[in-house]
Amino acid sequence: MRKVLLIGSGKSSSYLLKYLLNKSAEENLFITVGDINIENSKKIIGNHENAATICLDIFDETSRKDAIKNADIVVSMLPATLHIEIAKDCIAFEKNMVTASYVSPEMQALNDDAKAKGLIFLNEIGVDPGIDHMSAMHVLDRIRDNGGKIILFESFAGGLIAPESDNNLWNYKFTWNPRNVVTAGQGGAAKFLQEATYKYIPYNRLFRRTEFLDIDGFGRFEVYANRDSLKYQSVYGLDNIKTLYRGTIRRVGFCRAWHIFVSLGMTDDSYIIEDSENMSYRDFVNAFLPYSPSDSVELKLRHQLKIDQDDIVWDKLVELDIFNAKKPVALKKATPAQILQKILMDSWTLDKTDKDMLVMYHKFGYEKHGKQYQIDSSMVVLGEDQTFTAMAKTVGLPVAMATLAILNKKITARGVQIPVIKEIYQPILKELETFGIQFHEKEVPYLGYNPLNN
Amino acid sequence: MRKVLLIGSGKSSSYLLKYLLNKSAEENLFITVGDINIENSKKIIGNHENAATICLDIFDETSRKDAIKNADIVVSMLPATLHIEIAKDCIAFEKNMVTASYVSPEMQALNDDAKAKGLIFLNEIGVDPGIDHMSAMHVLDRIRDNGGKIILFESFAGGLIAPESDNNLWNYKFTWNPRNVVTAGQGGAAKFLQEATYKYIPYNRLFRRTEFLDIDGFGRFEVYANRDSLKYQSVYGLDNIKTLYRGTIRRVGFCRAWHIFVSLGMTDDSYIIEDSENMSYRDFVNAFLPYSPSDSVELKLRHQLKIDQDDIVWDKLVELDIFNAKKPVALKKATPAQILQKILMDSWTLDKTDKDMLVMYHKFGYEKHGKQYQIDSSMVVLGEDQTFTAMAKTVGLPVAMATLAILNKKITARGVQIPVIKEIYQPILKELETFGIQFHEKEVPYLGYNPLNN
Repeated sequence: MRKVLLIGSGKSSSYLLKYLLNKSAEENLFITVGDINIENSKKIIGNHENAATICLDIFDETSRKDAIKNADIVVSMLPATLHIEIAKDCIAFEKNMVTASYVSPEMQALNDDAKAKGLIFLNEIGVDPGIDHMSAMHVLDRIRDNGGKIILFESFAGGLIAPESDNNLWNYKFTWNPRNVVTAGQGGAAKFLQEATYKYIPYNRLFRRTEFLDIDGFGRFEVYANRDSLKYQSVYGLDNIKTLYRGTIRRVGFCRAWHIFVSLGMTDDSYIIEDSENMSYRDFVNAFLPYSPSDSVELKLRHQLKIDQDDIVWDKLVELDIFNAKKPVALKKATPAQILQKILMDSWTLDKTDKDMLVMYHKFGYEKHGKQYQIDSSMVVLGEDQTFTAMAKTVGLPVAMATLAILNKKITARGVQIPVIKEIYQPILKELETFGIQFHEKEVPYLGYNPLNN
Repeated sequence: MRKVLLIGSGKSSSYLLKYLLNKSAEENLFITVGDINIENSKKIIGNHENAATICLDIFDETSRKDAIKNADIVVSMLPATLHIEIAKDCIAFEKNMVTASYVSPEMQALNDDAKAKGLIFLNEIGVDPGIDHMSAMHVLDRIRDNGGKIILFESFAGGLIAPESDNNLWNYKFTWNPRNVVTAGQGGAAKFLQEATYKYIPYNRLFRRTEFLDIDGFGRFEVYANRDSLKYQSVYGLDNIKTLYRGTIRRVGFCRAWHIFVSLGMTDDSYIIEDSENMSYRDFVNAFLPYSPSDSVELKLRHQLKIDQDDIVWDKLVELDIFNAKKPVALKKATPAQILQKILMDSWTLDKTDKDMLVMYHKFGYEKHGKQYQIDSSMVVLGEDQTFTAMAKTVGLPVAMATLAILNKKITARGVQIPVIKEIYQPILKELETFGIQFHEKEVPYLGYNPLNN
């Protein structure tokens, strides 16, 4: 038996585990799931003979090392900051490792050691990062192999609510880490390239500089820019590209309403609100508005941000119940972002019957024989229920497939890797299609940003 | 002879030096000015027999220690970050020390050592901080001594251009460190108290939440909130106050125009603009606007920030020549804030004949025998020329007077101090009046923020 150790059994482990269990007989696998809380995994495993759960506290060095020593390959689905100790053990005990997280500087620093020991530490093999890399490189490499020169690449992704469960004015619910949604875009200006010009959007304008996207059968979406659209410019081989833009997908109107929170200062995570414990939701809103003994919080907010009486954005605020003077914040020493998150979770937490949706959209512009072309490629994945979500599917399946491919020596790359090379992305993309994770490509007239070029 | 060592002979040393020279005969003083560049001081000293200049590099430990060892008291007018090595030498050689800078944590940490050696390290004895502390405590203590209970304190200050030199649309020129003006308000939300309610203004709204002030004979001003209005709450003895607000004074309309720079992201000092060296002013503006092959930078900016065709705020931008496609930025690896500073310095640098103006305004609200009262106290100081500026006068004279008072043992406090105690502020405020630095008080109806209370 080949022993897979899966550390961390959170939201994204359902499909990952199911895939490995289904393959365990033919592939001769035994899967051990280690976590502090293993209830979720126990339900999925049932009494499957090729799997077991162990209660594993990764901060307990002895049991962590024992578990890793005992495995043939280690998959870490822990939060990104917790991978590094596991990675060091994997170096020590010479185990390959797979994660869905961004490569941290500490992880990158293990590249030489991993190579020297003939190991692969494959990261960023979930959905975003993961499927975005693979689906982008698939088309980029194909265009280049056919003699095309890439002039534009735009890439967007978002975790959203499925149309059948989309029943609030924001057309949004939390399908992943709420904290990341509340603080998204902070920490510096968004930077990208448009027609060979560097462009910058400060946080206070980020949600007012959106673009629209249409996806056949799913209607219109909007995107706001990621912090650093240029992060993978060299990795993707796009050093001389004219337009390079990456962003996050929301339903139309989300960003214009979210901008209200940004403007008021409610997304700030850098300081504590005085006496947050004893505030009502209304007090929280009022803390960002001028004092008045008589004017209402509502009118002060409308006036400060110039919100017209008949603007639907107002109803989005009301829907969140943020003007309620009786709902207590009840969080000790909380930042504005923490309080906002709590308010949003009242409204945006998935109901038991809710299904999620994962959307990805790439635009590829290229030149060939003096002419310009564009290919748009999009993917929509719908969740099945609250366990088998679109997020768990698109994160977990690539991780599982890569894990098996490494065990089967189909992947020969060594060191710290991300899935931008053909031997990784080609078979995985192909297999993902059998699970309904499929990109639809269409040729469209080259748009770019410069009609004079057309 | 009592030997005063003045380290740092920048813009604020003119009055400071002149005051000490004028007192040198009767007070038996010898003043040594140490700096790398001593040309300014040489002009002021001329061939005065009680003063000398030495070329002093404070990073050269030997010459720094020699100079300090040789002095009876040390005045440091260096930038705030450079005081600490001098302060440590002053501990070692048992010298009293005076600065006009905010007490840093490193400086505060020397409190016990200074006390143990019977020394005073008097800081924050310029204008802001300095005269603000002294003039506020003067009135606060008087109200309390007479049985009043303070319920409101608001305090504002600003370095501006004198009315006779006020000839641009912003009614502003740089009379002090331009960098501090460009980055003012960054780093977190402004926090203050209004009618016992904590209020927060995020940076992106700071310059849209201003208040107006009127000063007899000088017209109307506006103020924006400081980062932390509550910094001196306990030091001033205002722990139970209802309204506490500190701010920076500008001429009316400045902040609304400045808000454009904040909104565009031009004041950001946290990242480098690509290829800043080869940009024009126009390119710089365009970097914060969407790409278009045909639309003008002007129209894109008007559209993004919804600036009407007849809004004077537009003419303020044009006056700065920021749309000039031929003026090069010519700064290597510059941040947005550095580039904006350069653009502003083209327009806002003082002409040779320009005079500056220092404005301060306090509001004191108090209760006595069940009734509410308010005292407004304001000060305007005008500069004489480019050497004897209002800024140099209001910073330098309190420093000089405090230095002499320490030498003459009129100040008995020990340790790290700021001028909030009577033995320091009373004689200095009195002597400042003889130099025309004078507050005008008037009783006004108590305003507060709550008309129902009146």
